[in-house]
Amino acid sequence: MKRIVSLLSAVFLAGITAMAQQRPPAISSPDVHPDHSITFRYFSRNAKKVMVSGEFLSAPVAMTKDTLGIWSVTVPPVKPDIYPYSFTVDSVQMSDPNNTYIFANERFKRSIVDVPGDQLLVHSLQNVPHGKVSYRYYKSGTLGTTRQLLVYTPPGFDPNGKTRYPVLYLIHGGSDTEETWTKVGRANLIADNLMAQGKAKPMLIVMPYGNVRPAPMPDFTKDMVNDIVPFIEANFPVIKESKGRAVAGFSVGGGQTLNIGLTNPDKFAYVCSYAPFTATDEFKKNFTDWSPDAAQMNKQLKLFTISVGTEDFLYEPVKQNIAMFKDKKLAVKSYIVPGGHTWMNCKQYLATTLQEVFK
Amino acid sequence: MKRIVSLLSAVFLAGITAMAQQRPPAISSPDVHPDHSITFRYFSRNAKKVMVSGEFLSAPVAMTKDTLGIWSVTVPPVKPDIYPYSFTVDSVQMSDPNNTYIFANERFKRSIVDVPGDQLLVHSLQNVPHGKVSYRYYKSGTLGTTRQLLVYTPPGFDPNGKTRYPVLYLIHGGSDTEETWTKVGRANLIADNLMAQGKAKPMLIVMPYGNVRPAPMPDFTKDMVNDIVPFIEANFPVIKESKGRAVAGFSVGGGQTLNIGLTNPDKFAYVCSYAPFTATDEFKKNFTDWSPDAAQMNKQLKLFTISVGTEDFLYEPVKQNIAMFKDKKLAVKSYIVPGGHTWMNCKQYLATTLQEVFK
Repeated sequence: MKRIVSLLSAVFLAGITAMAQQRPPAISSPDVHPDHSITFRYFSRNAKKVMVSGEFLSAPVAMTKDTLGIWSVTVPPVKPDIYPYSFTVDSVQMSDPNNTYIFANERFKRSIVDVPGDQLLVHSLQNVPHGKVSYRYYKSGTLGTTRQLLVYTPPGFDPNGKTRYPVLYLIHGGSDTEETWTKVGRANLIADNLMAQGKAKPMLIVMPYGNVRPAPMPDFTKDMVNDIVPFIEANFPVIKESKGRAVAGFSVGGGQTLNIGLTNPDKFAYVCSYAPFTATDEFKKNFTDWSPDAAQMNKQLKLFTISVGTEDFLYEPVKQNIAMFKDKKLAVKSYIVPGGHTWMNCKQYLATTLQEVFK
Repeated sequence: MKRIVSLLSAVFLAGITAMAQQRPPAISSPDVHPDHSITFRYFSRNAKKVMVSGEFLSAPVAMTKDTLGIWSVTVPPVKPDIYPYSFTVDSVQMSDPNNTYIFANERFKRSIVDVPGDQLLVHSLQNVPHGKVSYRYYKSGTLGTTRQLLVYTPPGFDPNGKTRYPVLYLIHGGSDTEETWTKVGRANLIADNLMAQGKAKPMLIVMPYGNVRPAPMPDFTKDMVNDIVPFIEANFPVIKESKGRAVAGFSVGGGQTLNIGLTNPDKFAYVCSYAPFTATDEFKKNFTDWSPDAAQMNKQLKLFTISVGTEDFLYEPVKQNIAMFKDKKLAVKSYIVPGGHTWMNCKQYLATTLQEVFK
């Protein structure tokens, strides 16, 4: 996915952009090498110190400047995956200005670097049939506005055919956007690849925008149940029963998943929560002094999973929640794996549970 | 489209993110006020100088810092439109870290601010039926790779119906991406609004990625004719004749439009070039010592337009090209309007020509 800037086009672009307005020269960053080492570059004649931070590094590393003002550093080989990173130029943290691939988020600007494996990874663009990702608008009566969501439809999807598809409703993290699951999580490519191998059922994946600020958080639960699900069911050939609906999400979206799914087990038969953040009023209200009819819920829920990494900063509260649900006699399946509160882990959580829903 | 961060959610997010990793506090930027003035904010305790630059300003303006380290400035009312802007923090130019809306581009990182009008604008999200924007992959035999393109399908589009739609192939500027026409140019909303008013014909709009670096530029002409058009015609119910194909583009894409359209008048009956950049080998090769059969081409081309602003840095060469095409007796229609080499102008060029193609 890296877009190499050749010398010729760099000269050509330098010409046009110099005329249009003053911009830095065209340089290539990041460059991922065959041995999985990565070179990062940044242009500044005036900066005093440039550092790169990334989720493949245990600490920021310094770049060095050449005589033209191009700062660079090459980091040793890293495990193939997609990683967020950023530059710190003097006191300023920023995304890599030469990298098109930005971490879709409302509060920080980081770039992402894709280190391909020697074998294709579950999130790689592979030579398989591809589904489509469509950007759609829906009217939210709950929130009194028009909102955007993304819909993945699988390869061979026929909007007018007789097939009725199940739907996974997939929610991003706290300050992410409706694009984070495709742009960073590659949910569409993970689905393409698992479906091509027959490991996941053909399904729609609906990726809404989960933040409802300044509305109170529980309004997203209402938006999901009263606006998003009805919009999808009115516009796509889908199964309109709980056995055709799954809800999943990461971090704040993982907490929303528990709130939405476990208070509506008649509507969602599959609930998959990834590293859930649950220190919210809504979660407290729903699950403190909670006395569920466990036998009934275990019948309704065909799958209830919670995933978390042992280095996740939420590992302890997530373990406590798993214990709490077990204590209520709910059939919760836990996936405890290595790793932190990262989108590298998040992709794996999705890849695991995509193979289990609707089966 | 602005996402307001309430005090409550700011506290909530500050909690989770402080735990996850060190991030700046949640602040709201930009804030567009009812009188169309705009407040920009940036957090830094250490910066010495923070400036905002934007296409609504004739020169950068300085922000001032409060005791908490929040820099801000309010600029006087600006004409409603969508504008790119950036911050300069000490020596570093960057996008606004608190704004989700980023100018999709490979070489610079700017943010965009949407200043709504008192009346709805042609690019506003209006209460009309909305088409869909789908992200698709196609295999480019020309370039030997899988590439992404965006396809807008109009409201009421039926992939299996009897209607055959015309297609506008719409190309971005030099360092833009396949997303720039929707993310910055709002091509989908402009089309929704004009179609709702009956001013534009229902059509597909295909937005490919026009950069082929390090391949030579003419390879994009081949990619368009031999890969993109066949992919669309194999996968969508479209008119497979020149009268059902238009090509348009901005800046470098405007030059590509002339190269693609005028060397293939049997394939594209509508050619609309916006502020074309033509200082390329391909353009020189195609149109130096060119002796077209003007009578034949004027019969084939149902519409040939070139748009440019009088303050555009390409105004002079574009005027020379218009004169050159007129000299060759081609029926070129020129739209000379106020404004510069900007996406504000670009949206207007599209809105104008969308009402003329396929009629």
